[in-house]
Amino acid sequence: MTPHSPAGPEAHEPDLRHHGDAEVRADGADLVDLAVNVRTGTPPAWLRARLAATLAELAAYPDGTAARAAVAARHGRPVDEVLLTSGAAEAFVLLARVLTPRHITVVHPQFTEPEAALRDAGHPVHRALLSPDGGFRLTAGAVPEESDLVVLGNPTNPTSVLHPAAAVAALARPGRTLVIDEAFMDTVPGESESLATARELPGRVVVLRSLTKTWGLAGLRIGYVLGPAPLIAGLAAAQPLWPVSTPALVAAEACSAPAALDEAEQAAHELGLRRDHLLKGLAALPEVRVHGEPAASFVLVELPGADAVRERLRERGFAVRRGDTFPGLGPDWLRVAVRDEGTTDAFLAALAEALG
Amino acid sequence: MTPHSPAGPEAHEPDLRHHGDAEVRADGADLVDLAVNVRTGTPPAWLRARLAATLAELAAYPDGTAARAAVAARHGRPVDEVLLTSGAAEAFVLLARVLTPRHITVVHPQFTEPEAALRDAGHPVHRALLSPDGGFRLTAGAVPEESDLVVLGNPTNPTSVLHPAAAVAALARPGRTLVIDEAFMDTVPGESESLATARELPGRVVVLRSLTKTWGLAGLRIGYVLGPAPLIAGLAAAQPLWPVSTPALVAAEACSAPAALDEAEQAAHELGLRRDHLLKGLAALPEVRVHGEPAASFVLVELPGADAVRERLRERGFAVRRGDTFPGLGPDWLRVAVRDEGTTDAFLAALAEALG
Repeated sequence: MTPHSPAGPEAHEPDLRHHGDAEVRADGADLVDLAVNVRTGTPPAWLRARLAATLAELAAYPDGTAARAAVAARHGRPVDEVLLTSGAAEAFVLLARVLTPRHITVVHPQFTEPEAALRDAGHPVHRALLSPDGGFRLTAGAVPEESDLVVLGNPTNPTSVLHPAAAVAALARPGRTLVIDEAFMDTVPGESESLATARELPGRVVVLRSLTKTWGLAGLRIGYVLGPAPLIAGLAAAQPLWPVSTPALVAAEACSAPAALDEAEQAAHELGLRRDHLLKGLAALPEVRVHGEPAASFVLVELPGADAVRERLRERGFAVRRGDTFPGLGPDWLRVAVRDEGTTDAFLAALAEALG
Repeated sequence: MTPHSPAGPEAHEPDLRHHGDAEVRADGADLVDLAVNVRTGTPPAWLRARLAATLAELAAYPDGTAARAAVAARHGRPVDEVLLTSGAAEAFVLLARVLTPRHITVVHPQFTEPEAALRDAGHPVHRALLSPDGGFRLTAGAVPEESDLVVLGNPTNPTSVLHPAAAVAALARPGRTLVIDEAFMDTVPGESESLATARELPGRVVVLRSLTKTWGLAGLRIGYVLGPAPLIAGLAAAQPLWPVSTPALVAAEACSAPAALDEAEQAAHELGLRRDHLLKGLAALPEVRVHGEPAASFVLVELPGADAVRERLRERGFAVRRGDTFPGLGPDWLRVAVRDEGTTDAFLAALAEALG
């Protein structure tokens, strides 16, 4: 695997617009969902109650003032360094439209929407492919020095690898915009490697966050961007009027409160125990390899003939995420969500059968 | 008032980004809201219940299939001629980004977001100003023949004038995209002048609809575009992934059902009676003039020194919409929402005092 691939579509170009929700939905079968990385049992009852209270007030246009202030306070940043968006997906589109990069590097394998949005906006994209043999770690020289826009995820979807904050920060340069997709950072205890509060690095550091995974709000469309105030103002100017709904704003405010952060931290610890259980089970299967140290709410596995195994898992009632739509992976990869021990045990049994 | 103004900002350029919600919110006072044209008592209880049922399912990503089919069926069009959007505001931005017009005419006075979105996308905009002396009617020659993109509202915000469908259809041309903002069409009994189902006109006819006003969903962000399938596909490609939230999709589906359309029709009839009551009261005030025949959920009035009157109305507890931010109007204009007779009577009394 070469560290740098040429820009532009390749012979076997992966479908950047494939997402896990399509795998759960594909044939209407009632599958156990290990394809989408949203915490189960969410949104919690207290959050549903907060959202329900907004339904009587929908006649008024959304006012994002309180939500923006709450998010800013949660990360210790000024309000003008926060932009609320209709999910992280809107943030990728806004960045692609507003930025005028000369040389873009997207660090792969990772979530494909940033590259898709950049390509849609007409920008050529250079791919830096991290190697499974190196545990998908960031290596010196992975990102060309001339790149003035660098995009990576931390922890990274689909590898589940958590890069050290120092390694990510080392990518910051004067004249470079460094975009870090931290959509899964709240699955890491203490958010230890986050750069959400990093305001003193050279160049422009932009952090994208999501409430989708921990809080079960994929259907509500809420995320946010943290970055330098002038860039935030530019992104805001590219948004439609009233871009975020009132329930989504209330969710952003509610999930930034100390009690919610405590709950997320507790969930991150429980997730770690559940992930250890899954990894232990996977280690007992000789065909399966896990590269690097998974740190998020999913695990990427390499196993020969994964595409056929995935079909056999579907027959046994389990949906997992195909790996071949991620640049740098291929038909021998699957992504599996971390679930409770009972679900994981049932999945591991089905996987053993599917492999046999 | 000349029919055509030059493109580009003028000496006293109105603030195209001012909207009625800012007038209600301006100083935190508890004002009776006649500035925002959303039906009172909305969303109705049955719709709130439908929306509440979505809150337990927010962990899943939105799937617009059912909503798109319901909207298509409601207007008797194929599914691929329907695009669901995060409010009509998103539709304006998408159109401004996807279309490549050489000569744009926006028919004013009208809602200012379409022009603002077009200017933001770098397009020069030509304004066709309809005259109050002509009752803000569409006149032959109002739109230059060379315009390949024409934008107008029907019924028009803020004039409340309903153009005959035939007059609007007469603007369609081969090679021209005709965009009709029908955000208030469901306030017209029978939606008599709608072009939502017009698929045989020359050129491209694009109709924008909203659920905001009749259903009280301003806070939810839901609207849709009806138009030729290739253009709809182009607009969809410019949307972020998962652009419309699950509650908004459920609202679009629910409000397209026959029972909801019956309720909207009944509301439109009641609105007509309430508007007659307001107009009768306004006619008794010699300083006040109403131009044309108001047909929507608001009335535009001309009265000398309207800006000062508006301030005195605020002191008396009523928020109305300033008119001077609409191209073609000025400081002598106000827009007033139609409310129940009691509210209207109280408003008329306050207005009489404010004028005196």
